[in-house]
Amino acid sequence: MPRPILLFTGPWADLPLEHLVAKTGDWGYQGFELCCWGDHLEVQRGLSDDDYAPALLDQLARHDLQIPVVANHKVGQAVSDPIDARHQLLLPEYVWGDGNPKGVRQRAAEEMAATFRVAEKLGASVVSGFTGSPIWSFVAGYPAPKPGQLAEAFKQFAGQWNPILDVAKETGVRFACEVHPGQLAFDLYSAEVTLDALHGREEFGFLFDPSHLHWQGVDPVEFLRRFADRIYHVHIKDAVLSLNGRSGVLAGYWPSGDPKRGWQFRSPGRGGIDWEAIIRTLNEIQYDGPLAIDWHDPGMDREFGAAEAYKFVRQLDFDPPARGPHVSRG
Amino acid sequence: MPRPILLFTGPWADLPLEHLVAKTGDWGYQGFELCCWGDHLEVQRGLSDDDYAPALLDQLARHDLQIPVVANHKVGQAVSDPIDARHQLLLPEYVWGDGNPKGVRQRAAEEMAATFRVAEKLGASVVSGFTGSPIWSFVAGYPAPKPGQLAEAFKQFAGQWNPILDVAKETGVRFACEVHPGQLAFDLYSAEVTLDALHGREEFGFLFDPSHLHWQGVDPVEFLRRFADRIYHVHIKDAVLSLNGRSGVLAGYWPSGDPKRGWQFRSPGRGGIDWEAIIRTLNEIQYDGPLAIDWHDPGMDREFGAAEAYKFVRQLDFDPPARGPHVSRG
Amino acid sequence: MPRPILLFTGPWADLPLEHLVAKTGDWGYQGFELCCWGDHLEVQRGLSDDDYAPALLDQLARHDLQIPVVANHKVGQAVSDPIDARHQLLLPEYVWGDGNPKGVRQRAAEEMAATFRVAEKLGASVVSGFTGSPIWSFVAGYPAPKPGQLAEAFKQFAGQWNPILDVAKETGVRFACEVHPGQLAFDLYSAEVTLDALHGREEFGFLFDPSHLHWQGVDPVEFLRRFADRIYHVHIKDAVLSLNGRSGVLAGYWPSGDPKRGWQFRSPGRGGIDWEAIIRTLNEIQYDGPLAIDWHDPGMDREFGAAEAYKFVRQLDFDPPARGPHVSRG
Amino acid sequence: MPRPILLFTGPWADLPLEHLVAKTGDWGYQGFELCCWGDHLEVQRGLSDDDYAPALLDQLARHDLQIPVVANHKVGQAVSDPIDARHQLLLPEYVWGDGNPKGVRQRAAEEMAATFRVAEKLGASVVSGFTGSPIWSFVAGYPAPKPGQLAEAFKQFAGQWNPILDVAKETGVRFACEVHPGQLAFDLYSAEVTLDALHGREEFGFLFDPSHLHWQGVDPVEFLRRFADRIYHVHIKDAVLSLNGRSGVLAGYWPSGDPKRGWQFRSPGRGGIDWEAIIRTLNEIQYDGPLAIDWHDPGMDREFGAAEAYKFVRQLDFDPPARGPHVSRG
Amino acid sequence: MPRPILLFTGPWADLPLEHLVAKTGDWGYQGFELCCWGDHLEVQRGLSDDDYAPALLDQLARHDLQIPVVANHKVGQAVSDPIDARHQLLLPEYVWGDGNPKGVRQRAAEEMAATFRVAEKLGASVVSGFTGSPIWSFVAGYPAPKPGQLAEAFKQFAGQWNPILDVAKETGVRFACEVHPGQLAFDLYSAEVTLDALHGREEFGFLFDPSHLHWQGVDPVEFLRRFADRIYHVHIKDAVLSLNGRSGVLAGYWPSGDPKRGWQFRSPGRGGIDWEAIIRTLNEIQYDGPLAIDWHDPGMDREFGAAEAYKFVRQLDFDPPARGPHVSRG
Amino acid sequence: MPRPILLFTGPWADLPLEHLVAKTGDWGYQGFELCCWGDHLEVQRGLSDDDYAPALLDQLARHDLQIPVVANHKVGQAVSDPIDARHQLLLPEYVWGDGNPKGVRQRAAEEMAATFRVAEKLGASVVSGFTGSPIWSFVAGYPAPKPGQLAEAFKQFAGQWNPILDVAKETGVRFACEVHPGQLAFDLYSAEVTLDALHGREEFGFLFDPSHLHWQGVDPVEFLRRFADRIYHVHIKDAVLSLNGRSGVLAGYWPSGDPKRGWQFRSPGRGGIDWEAIIRTLNEIQYDGPLAIDWHDPGMDREFGAAEAYKFVRQLDFDPPARGPHVSRG
Repeated sequence: MPRPILLFTGPWADLPLEHLVAKTGDWGYQGFELCCWGDHLEVQRGLSDDDYAPALLDQLARHDLQIPVVANHKVGQAVSDPIDARHQLLLPEYVWGDGNPKGVRQRAAEEMAATFRVAEKLGASVVSGFTGSPIWSFVAGYPAPKPGQLAEAFKQFAGQWNPILDVAKETGVRFACEVHPGQLAFDLYSAEVTLDALHGREEFGFLFDPSHLHWQGVDPVEFLRRFADRIYHVHIKDAVLSLNGRSGVLAGYWPSGDPKRGWQFRSPGRGGIDWEAIIRTLNEIQYDGPLAIDWHDPGMDREFGAAEAYKFVRQLDFDPPARGPHVSRG
Repeated sequence: MPRPILLFTGPWADLPLEHLVAKTGDWGYQGFELCCWGDHLEVQRGLSDDDYAPALLDQLARHDLQIPVVANHKVGQAVSDPIDARHQLLLPEYVWGDGNPKGVRQRAAEEMAATFRVAEKLGASVVSGFTGSPIWSFVAGYPAPKPGQLAEAFKQFAGQWNPILDVAKETGVRFACEVHPGQLAFDLYSAEVTLDALHGREEFGFLFDPSHLHWQGVDPVEFLRRFADRIYHVHIKDAVLSLNGRSGVLAGYWPSGDPKRGWQFRSPGRGGIDWEAIIRTLNEIQYDGPLAIDWHDPGMDREFGAAEAYKFVRQLDFDPPARGPHVSRG
Repeated sequence: MPRPILLFTGPWADLPLEHLVAKTGDWGYQGFELCCWGDHLEVQRGLSDDDYAPALLDQLARHDLQIPVVANHKVGQAVSDPIDARHQLLLPEYVWGDGNPKGVRQRAAEEMAATFRVAEKLGASVVSGFTGSPIWSFVAGYPAPKPGQLAEAFKQFAGQWNPILDVAKETGVRFACEVHPGQLAFDLYSAEVTLDALHGREEFGFLFDPSHLHWQGVDPVEFLRRFADRIYHVHIKDAVLSLNGRSGVLAGYWPSGDPKRGWQFRSPGRGGIDWEAIIRTLNEIQYDGPLAIDWHDPGMDREFGAAEAYKFVRQLDFDPPARGPHVSRG
Repeated sequence: MPRPILLFTGPWADLPLEHLVAKTGDWGYQGFELCCWGDHLEVQRGLSDDDYAPALLDQLARHDLQIPVVANHKVGQAVSDPIDARHQLLLPEYVWGDGNPKGVRQRAAEEMAATFRVAEKLGASVVSGFTGSPIWSFVAGYPAPKPGQLAEAFKQFAGQWNPILDVAKETGVRFACEVHPGQLAFDLYSAEVTLDALHGREEFGFLFDPSHLHWQGVDPVEFLRRFADRIYHVHIKDAVLSLNGRSGVLAGYWPSGDPKRGWQFRSPGRGGIDWEAIIRTLNEIQYDGPLAIDWHDPGMDREFGAAEAYKFVRQLDFDPPARGPHVSRG
Repeated sequence: MPRPILLFTGPWADLPLEHLVAKTGDWGYQGFELCCWGDHLEVQRGLSDDDYAPALLDQLARHDLQIPVVANHKVGQAVSDPIDARHQLLLPEYVWGDGNPKGVRQRAAEEMAATFRVAEKLGASVVSGFTGSPIWSFVAGYPAPKPGQLAEAFKQFAGQWNPILDVAKETGVRFACEVHPGQLAFDLYSAEVTLDALHGREEFGFLFDPSHLHWQGVDPVEFLRRFADRIYHVHIKDAVLSLNGRSGVLAGYWPSGDPKRGWQFRSPGRGGIDWEAIIRTLNEIQYDGPLAIDWHDPGMDREFGAAEAYKFVRQLDFDPPARGPHVSRG
Repeated sequence: MPRPILLFTGPWADLPLEHLVAKTGDWGYQGFELCCWGDHLEVQRGLSDDDYAPALLDQLARHDLQIPVVANHKVGQAVSDPIDARHQLLLPEYVWGDGNPKGVRQRAAEEMAATFRVAEKLGASVVSGFTGSPIWSFVAGYPAPKPGQLAEAFKQFAGQWNPILDVAKETGVRFACEVHPGQLAFDLYSAEVTLDALHGREEFGFLFDPSHLHWQGVDPVEFLRRFADRIYHVHIKDAVLSLNGRSGVLAGYWPSGDPKRGWQFRSPGRGGIDWEAIIRTLNEIQYDGPLAIDWHDPGMDREFGAAEAYKFVRQLDFDPPARGPHVSRG
């Protein structure tokens, strides 16, 4: 299925967008999942300056690139997290402000709403991102949560995100919540309760990234089947277990690529993920959105990697049968 | 090797100690790893009341039970954790006080120091427990830590625990830090850096509990070999992976026993842990301390379980060769 | 959970019941799943002779044996099978009659109805058995079925079994359909459609025997969870894969025990089945019926085996927590 | 070894042969395993019309295509099967006739004999096909066969096929019996007894298709080594296990591609088969016949698939050493 | 099958026989596989002193112990080995003599012949032992052998052992050659060629010890089936792989028990060997000789181990069906 | 990392060098690991004839080929082996001489020293080779070595190689000892003790060839990490386990390719080695030397293989990040 193949610009935010545009076009990509940090997309300018979006679209069009998806992971993280010093590095100054937690969360929510409005201007149909989580410290930690604490957290989460999702509805842009450690939804069952907390409203679906499920032991195919109509965006990112008796899956305090970790990110097709099964299931559930390469591999030159990743995904994305399957005989 | 087999009383703290004493003697145990909550051991009374310790020892001696280890996990957790509402449920009222984080941590540290003094009075040679962690939210979470943040955390940890360990040294009682999620040391490599942060001082070693390593993919045997001279206490507790494609190793928000979890605790010998390899390695590294059953199995009656666990460990703890190994021939 | 442990008498039908009664009592069993062949239970006598059932119950009571379950696999097989020469060996003469397929199926259905009436007289709460299948030749065969053919077969099946199940309802005795190759329901998904074909009527549930699921690659635990309220009876029977590159799971034309087969039956606890997981799941779904040992092991003396199997199951069937699970700490 | 790569036309019989010819030539294939259904090959016309074969060969030669193998699976199935309604859909009208089983089997046998004569006219050296089985319902079913029943079935089989094989001998065209569920020979050991039933006559060998062995747990390499001089034809078809705890290897009533099945067909190179080992073993046993792609993949567009499959096999079929192996040093 | 359970005395040769006799009787054993070193059995005294054998038998009979098997591994090793300094430690002084290789091999052959004569006097039916190998340095070494070198070695081997086997024939005592690294026969295929070199003469069969096959990756069950009528003796000895990425199966220069080895010996039932499959296959091939425990476990007290090993084997050795297997039903 | 890709000429020594030069250039290689047998490199001529080296370099330069490595495995083997008839086939006549072991070893040592001098003339920075081993017969053999015997052997080894390594130092050419069965260093731990025996002198490092570690169960990645600064040369050679229950890892007396072996060599990328992990680890340890293809595959035409192997390695050898790894976000 010739789905558009995008480059997620988050890991390239150290490069000016204009440099990235030329490279990305050369590698063959159809567009960007454009991140709202670095100089890639400035939300407040996009909101207030009517020339910003057309100019940006024009700049990309010169390299045949589109923006079907806008990404704002860093701000989203602050909406439902308990705020501490770590968040200052994630947020624009005007969102962080005085750093008072309640105010930070409120401003982050407003910035997310603004992101949907800018996405609409850019013709994007999806905003992707993180949500943060009021209860991440409970996951695999100590002490365990009491049931009342969980219920309270999910209620708080809904209260924080429903207003944002109202804007999503108004703009016709959907939210693809990345299922990822550190978020309220980080595996199959937590995605279920997160969706339930929002009463399954249609503006909210998932960004499926199998690399985050793989090392947890969750089968990405089961995830896709369980949420067949809620896959709003897809990341292509690979991972591999590197357990050797001493390393562990929690990967400790060690940076990406450190051999002391029990798993590693890998350039697509070079890790342990069964892409063959994933593409078939995406076909089966009739996902027809883009495939965004979220390139990260601590052991490979990233430009080499981005180029080979495009070729890998182009080959992966084969045609399913036009009609139903053919009957076999022998 | 006929090591003493203890019952860790933490999971039985809902029972009055006097009830537990009789049962435990009947099951055949040699003693307790006695916890400082419920009515099992009252640290402040032990400290101030000179009759308390002798009376307690006397009560146990009537059932041939000893107290080689005193456990204070709950208070230890508060020493290095960022304090929030969850800790109120863990702590005695006089430690929680007004709940101001700095004060709570300070009072928790003092209570830990007191625990060593009471342990000395009881003739125990080890205090076991948790430490809490200033950086647990970084583990498997988002965003990742910056190197400076880690260094700062380890320094803070050392500052909090060195005074407690000074008391340990003074009393001749060692601290066995349980390697467990939620703590600074939760796997092999994090145990390494934790030990380094304390410059390897001898009062500080580990409580080895293979159930917490197993689901992380860390081989308990490697842990024992790496820290051969720092195994100060051992928990016998089993665990089993229950991955089925939908569940994950982070086990989510689900209580013990819930089939949505990717792993479960099990009564010793009924899980996935290779006890044969563990006992051989304990022999190899010449660990001669007690084996404490930390019984937890959400699918089994606990009294049935405590009785069968004792028999399991008694049989497990076989004799190594008196002299070196014999030469084989055919 | 002290569930009654029964001996399924089918594999012992070559022995007169009176011989079997004494042995079974000695081995420790609580009763029989009594089969309607050999001289163990004569349906027509039970139906017409008012002294038959009391005398039988009396004979067993002298050895403290009960009959909670009556088994009529052989006759059940003829209800929905296409009838051919193989069935003559399975059926009483008066059911086979002239062997005309339509008549045989009709008489088999009447005999099954009669079995429920006799079971009621014996105080049994369950009849176990096979159903046969109009479409077994399609399973793994050639050519594949057309959708219309399947729909027709399920409709035919319902037409054949609903009258029998009406008698089940009338007598208050439930039918436990053994999920087994050769039957309409032979794995998890086929059990689903079979239950649907009967509109889920309550008289119809399953006899769970993990040995038939194991070699198919179906996880018995998943089966129990899927049909938590439809497990009406349980067989304890073990199996082991014996694939070696040349043997295959279809096991060919080879008799039990032949090394050319890709799997084998085994005495309970000596095969590949995870009984620990199964007993926990039976506890979890609160199955409180009997556990019937369907003993078959081509490599072991059967009397030796029946005795050891009883001990195995007695030990397996441990107590779950009286109340919910206990909270763990460390 | 540059073996001819053929397309087996069975799965393409919905297309007129003239359409298929052009495509197949474009994809690079060297010829067809031409099926006797659809409009691909009309046996009776080929037999009676002297211009039919030359015209057909001429039509193909224009695209550089040959016909080394003629396939007649559907008619072969009826020779030894118990005949029922399913066979009407498989057979030409003149073979089905009035549907009386004995007559159908007889006419099917005659049609198979005719197929060898037509194959000879086309210059083919092999007829491939099914045989049916009088005893398929015994495989994995209930009740199990008695030894006498098996012996009788093999005798009947030999009686049905020996006259056909006499024609094979007369024409110099060999029969490649596809080892496949639903046939008398469906795994390694059943192939052994089938060959024995025919006293090993040379006209009879096997069509090796690893996809049918893979999910049974039979190692295709062992099959090739066991029947090194009886591999008369080879299908390239892939398969993959899709067991997930709920699905099973018998694959139930579910059509190809349904996720409820425990295994699936796959385009060559995208499944679980170890083609590297297979091609090496084909070299080792010096098989020098064609490799026919029997393309079936319910999740892929078939034209895309047929093209990539050709490339896959072309690359797979590497050169073995001209002389014996070279000696290694370091 | 109540086979006699023996203790192989080789690993106990440091104990005087009289001490071992009492212990062995207490542990429950039925007899010894008595070794010809230490003071256990003196071949030359047995040969020349007519009172020696009766006195020995009498000594054992007082503890209900028999000697069905006499072991002479150390001398056997010297018959076909290239002799060097290592052999001096294995041999009695009168066999070593001046250490000239040709003479040593000749005297070793004569001592082996004498061993059979003494075995006859003791009523033993089997002599067990090693053979040595002229070509062990070729196995896994460098350079590889030339075919001519192999043929020559097998011829030499036959020339050395045929005279010994002539004495075996004369005395009615068979030779059980232990399949073991360092011998001509060390795995399944090397056992085949060794047997062929002796033209399959009946005096020569194998001592089956699964521990030596396990780490080589050879399935002990396949070995038993391949040599069903040549299993003349059985050792019960367990082994476990201990590969961890750094250790290797060749086990290096490291003594038994060293964690740097990739495999270890274990007390029976505590390693990786599938004893369930082995005992069933011994029943299947109708082996009715003794089971000799060759106890070696570098991590366990040997007296503790010898006692538990006896109990393990007694339980393992269950009864096969008196008649053929029973037919199963459900 | 664009490392030079070499062809190791050892397996091609049957071809005159001039023939090989042209082919190798066409396949794309950058140079040779040139062996000192066949007519490829004549050590004594190189030493005495000042025109030899320049002429050779010139001949290769015409095809853009270099000689970064000179290989002398066969002579190296004789330096520390116990000498027997097998070595005559390995050695030049003038090294074998009268075959007296002591003299052979001495002349082999001198020839190795000469090899370093010739390598210097050719501008090579590495000599690769074997060492032989005085104690190979102990590995996996019988009887086991005594500690004193090992210590003596390592001392002898150092005495034999230190003079050669002195020449290495003098010439500035390092020795890359191939870790390989039959040598003193054949796995990770034996490499450790070998290096220790030489007091870690810098002239001595390892030729890393993962194919020899793979079947031993040693993880090649662990080897690279353990000897990060001692990897002086790398062979690209693949291997695959072919265990099937009957074959074993010692591979018996069977030549390369024989299915009775438990493992086989394979053309790179077609075996079981995880090249992805290896190349990443070579990048991690910053190995920047050449990658030499030591091509051996008994089932493939060697010219076909050498060509595809070059392409495989060229693609494998990707660029690591120029700077450190990039931080990932989602």
